[in-house]
Amino acid sequence: MSEVKSSIEKVNGFIEKVNGFKVVGVHAGLKKEGKLDFALIVSETPATVAGVFTTNQVKAAPVLVDMERLAKKQTGYRAVAINTGCANACTGQQGIDNALETARYVAEKIGCAEDEVLVLSTGVIGTQLMMEKICSGVDLASTALGDDWSTAAQAIMTTDTRPKTASITVTKADGGHYTIAGISKGAGMIAPNMATMLGVIVTDAVLSPEKASTALKTASEGSYNRIVIDGDMSTNDTVLLLANGQSGVEMTSPEDEKQFQIALNKVCVDLAKAIVRDGEGVTKFITITVHGAPDNESARKIANTIATSPLVKTAFYGNDANWGRIIAAAGRSGVALDPNKLTLWISPSEQVTDLSNDSLMLVSMGTPTNYNEARATEIISAPSVVVLLMCGLGDGWATVWTCDLSHDYVSINGSYRS
Amino acid sequence: MSEVKSSIEKVNGFIEKVNGFKVVGVHAGLKKEGKLDFALIVSETPATVAGVFTTNQVKAAPVLVDMERLAKKQTGYRAVAINTGCANACTGQQGIDNALETARYVAEKIGCAEDEVLVLSTGVIGTQLMMEKICSGVDLASTALGDDWSTAAQAIMTTDTRPKTASITVTKADGGHYTIAGISKGAGMIAPNMATMLGVIVTDAVLSPEKASTALKTASEGSYNRIVIDGDMSTNDTVLLLANGQSGVEMTSPEDEKQFQIALNKVCVDLAKAIVRDGEGVTKFITITVHGAPDNESARKIANTIATSPLVKTAFYGNDANWGRIIAAAGRSGVALDPNKLTLWISPSEQVTDLSNDSLMLVSMGTPTNYNEARATEIISAPSVVVLLMCGLGDGWATVWTCDLSHDYVSINGSYRS
Repeated sequence: MSEVKSSIEKVNGFIEKVNGFKVVGVHAGLKKEGKLDFALIVSETPATVAGVFTTNQVKAAPVLVDMERLAKKQTGYRAVAINTGCANACTGQQGIDNALETARYVAEKIGCAEDEVLVLSTGVIGTQLMMEKICSGVDLASTALGDDWSTAAQAIMTTDTRPKTASITVTKADGGHYTIAGISKGAGMIAPNMATMLGVIVTDAVLSPEKASTALKTASEGSYNRIVIDGDMSTNDTVLLLANGQSGVEMTSPEDEKQFQIALNKVCVDLAKAIVRDGEGVTKFITITVHGAPDNESARKIANTIATSPLVKTAFYGNDANWGRIIAAAGRSGVALDPNKLTLWISPSEQVTDLSNDSLMLVSMGTPTNYNEARATEIISAPSVVVLLMCGLGDGWATVWTCDLSHDYVSINGSYRS
Repeated sequence: MSEVKSSIEKVNGFIEKVNGFKVVGVHAGLKKEGKLDFALIVSETPATVAGVFTTNQVKAAPVLVDMERLAKKQTGYRAVAINTGCANACTGQQGIDNALETARYVAEKIGCAEDEVLVLSTGVIGTQLMMEKICSGVDLASTALGDDWSTAAQAIMTTDTRPKTASITVTKADGGHYTIAGISKGAGMIAPNMATMLGVIVTDAVLSPEKASTALKTASEGSYNRIVIDGDMSTNDTVLLLANGQSGVEMTSPEDEKQFQIALNKVCVDLAKAIVRDGEGVTKFITITVHGAPDNESARKIANTIATSPLVKTAFYGNDANWGRIIAAAGRSGVALDPNKLTLWISPSEQVTDLSNDSLMLVSMGTPTNYNEARATEIISAPSVVVLLMCGLGDGWATVWTCDLSHDYVSINGSYRS
């Protein structure tokens, strides 16, 4: 039987080499103080690409360019260029021209056609790309490509405090093995449906365009689309999956495909959770699970409403098990609930299905239990807290990951541009 | 012709006497340090009552009791009792029993039937009313009733920093005049659709139940339902309109009715704006107006999305004219927009229709104008700022009033129960 070996590395330099991919992050001059701000990821051979993009109707120029390219063809891609410091959003035709020029210049430098390059941007909205700096970044990066993903992960950071990387190696029953590795950035403007999130995931497995698209969509739905920092959604969110087939490993059975999906999900979930853990001003990682909703979509709506509630988030920040705010948020989610059937647990375990001795039931059938307030405060004071709301209506369920709302969030976002 | 004289008083003690109403606020012991925490409003003669209530599906016991009473009859009411310190929400049958007992005890003390009394509560969710204290509050209040509304306005405050009162006197063409006066509390958990808002408005005009309901619904829609502090919605929101007819003035023409509606709107808008101005941690009053949307409902959706965006709110707090966040929020509102038709103005004037010399266009047709950043910062640093977003799609429009998100908001809500 096949065996999945999983290794998730969250510190610099621990993504193992992925066959046929070269990467680097450099300082192009978009950010101050010599910080890395431009990343280049190159596949030595043409790669199949799938993409998921922001659903915000105001889309940045690179998003528009990439969406158009991927709609035309999903194969033959050679590179992805990513800059921080400028979102290239609300920049009109000049923004589109600059995105196209970035791709063209990368193509010139690495030796491919200009429509074989994709571009991503993140940063402030409404300013034009400084093309001289972008070009100098391309010059630097194209001559410094290597196997060290850590500089690329650093170069895509904005208000992130640490780079986010994850990788996994899958060994098939026949002994063939392939790697999936990815980098992400996030930190603020995070909400379900792809929000200020950039992610690039590469694999040396052989994938068809259809398989790549289905797998990425499925993985994103259960990872990037399940995280909430502040409920805002960005103009630039993009996750790309590049598969260059250099391991020679094909998915020849439904079991192979399932194994790939599980591995990709794991990479995406780890990257998504890393984004929440590094959210702006975050002091607490919060898992919100809703069970017993009329259906999964309702469960998700309830979970999202709780996760985006400023009153819930500030209570968590204050280590206050103020469950009334959780119940009140559920009540305004728009889903038909029976208040007298609501049961609420909190737990310090990240396994939400594990209502062990560590868990505490705060509310039963709509009214508070005679719980120990000191114990509730102890649980809510932990760096990771699980909230489980049972609606008692059906078998719909959903989990979202979120964080608290702190003084630092306000400080960071009150002075982002200064 | 008739003339409307309007006087809006925002400090203690300036509501003029309203014929046939007696009020008082006392210290029942629900709050610490002798703070006023129980208000009683009594009509000497039976009054017609209209009510609007929270749409949160988790409704507090007093909301359920009042809704049931008003569904049965809208006339013959004699009193409204309001406590702070305890929301009486998520309190099960005991909560209902306590709400009913409060009404019964008030009825006994002022001499009326128990179903002629309505009850309102605000405070922490999930604790039971301390009935001994409630009863001592009723004892105190029922013997201290008078014409001074300021103590009542103080007694319904929670995290409010100041009482909110408004009144207006209308003089009809025939010389008859009547008064509309109201008190409100708010401060946090404020969102469209009646959120953590209590309001009691009284008038000595003669109103039928139908007229009272229509007038209150119309006025609430353009006032209380247009304010956003944090997007949360409470279990307790209630606005009541009591009309005891003691002025003897009837609405005998469509013009009379229109005049009453205008006056009631004015009282409600002033109370609603006062709630935003006194929002938790507020440093800035923000008017968001959306024009040119496909329809009014779409305009409102866009305006609400902007108003609840933590990134927009923190930028305002930081005096940062980071308009990209406003455009990005509009883009994720769910309304179909054309990014290339968006125009954005900011103005220090509260008259949003007045795009005078003071106003500044930041974005034209989706891209930034060559505006003066220093001027933008100057406008955004004012205590009151207007944002006008023109969508260029239709004639739908909406205005909502909101505030910034500050360090103090986090402090207040991180330690609300402690």
